[in-house]
Amino acid sequence: MKGIAYGVGVGPGDPEYMTLKAIRLIRENDVIALPGKEPKETVAYKIAAAVVPELADKELVPIYMPMVKDRELIDQEHRRSAKLVESYLDQGKNVVYLTLGDSTVYCTFSYIQHYLEADGYTVELISGIPSFCAAAARLNVPLCEWDEPLHILPAVHKLDAELKEPGNYVLMKSASQMKAVKDILRRSGRKVGMVENCSMETEKVYRSVDEIPDDAGYFSLIIAKE
Amino acid sequence: MKGIAYGVGVGPGDPEYMTLKAIRLIRENDVIALPGKEPKETVAYKIAAAVVPELADKELVPIYMPMVKDRELIDQEHRRSAKLVESYLDQGKNVVYLTLGDSTVYCTFSYIQHYLEADGYTVELISGIPSFCAAAARLNVPLCEWDEPLHILPAVHKLDAELKEPGNYVLMKSASQMKAVKDILRRSGRKVGMVENCSMETEKVYRSVDEIPDDAGYFSLIIAKE
Repeated sequence: MKGIAYGVGVGPGDPEYMTLKAIRLIRENDVIALPGKEPKETVAYKIAAAVVPELADKELVPIYMPMVKDRELIDQEHRRSAKLVESYLDQGKNVVYLTLGDSTVYCTFSYIQHYLEADGYTVELISGIPSFCAAAARLNVPLCEWDEPLHILPAVHKLDAELKEPGNYVLMKSASQMKAVKDILRRSGRKVGMVENCSMETEKVYRSVDEIPDDAGYFSLIIAKE
Repeated sequence: MKGIAYGVGVGPGDPEYMTLKAIRLIRENDVIALPGKEPKETVAYKIAAAVVPELADKELVPIYMPMVKDRELIDQEHRRSAKLVESYLDQGKNVVYLTLGDSTVYCTFSYIQHYLEADGYTVELISGIPSFCAAAARLNVPLCEWDEPLHILPAVHKLDAELKEPGNYVLMKSASQMKAVKDILRRSGRKVGMVENCSMETEKVYRSVDEIPDDAGYFSLIIAKE
């Protein structure tokens, strides 16, 4: 019997945002995969270990995916990571891959998942609190009400539309081009809030475009409402 | 000292999808508001009570918001519900409002929140797993990868655009016009999955448009991918 690969979201940062399901899966399984070169240095590890300290004594598998632009190189790395996970599944061991936020939203596990499924392994995804929900909660603003659509966009190059669709926008991973994003936000006339490192100890909250620094960090999440 | 009103998401249905934060807030507070005429009959109550059985002995406040179309009548009901919550806050008691899914996504608490804030009370939102994340996890499909935008749309009348934006779509609350929605989905050529009553005991999973029944239930969640 081959093991199952679980993609498990541990939420945005605050260990209290972990679900009972994530906690149980970590407790019940011995092999835990973490997105990074040094498992114990990853954010996902720190979140989970705060609730499940015995995580420190489990078999921690580093899933290292370098940030490169060459799609072919990336694919090679994902293939290699999938093979590493499969080496445990072949021994009949389950692998619990821990990921920040939710396991279906811009999640590194998705890339591995496709290879695992193509190779005939069983994958199960377990939801975590997505960072954009936590950011909205932190700002105390509903993401969507009544009949408002909600658009979740990654990075600046998708902002050509200048946020002209009806409804509200979540902008993720905008940090690298924050100055351009701020211009677009200003022109949109929308009500803007941003949370950096939401629910982590280093969290910062911004309640207007003008408050947002040009050099905001990677985990910056913008909500722009009609 | 006035109490604080907490809007707390309990997740999509499976009690294991509750967060430690939701559990703590329910345990620590005596007044729990629930969206319905009979608190113990609400879905949110059943989810929470499965994990925190002492909920049964707390002061359970019914927040009844009838499904009517007249916006003025709705506003009156929301005003009345806010006043009811405020009557507890004025006594210095916190009120924990439990809601299905997440507290920022099409959440009935949002309506009350606006009144509470206008009246000068403190509101705090606590995230829960949104139903669309749980549905994607159940279907084992990532909601968005790489640079894919994600569009979350409520109900059929927003489908004029025929799902023509790049990226993936989540369609919520489509049950009442499922036949029309199915036609749009077919024309879109997208890969479609649906989960009815996601993570509840009555859950049903559909993996193509043709499998989806015209009379699907209220808690039906459609994911349409490029």
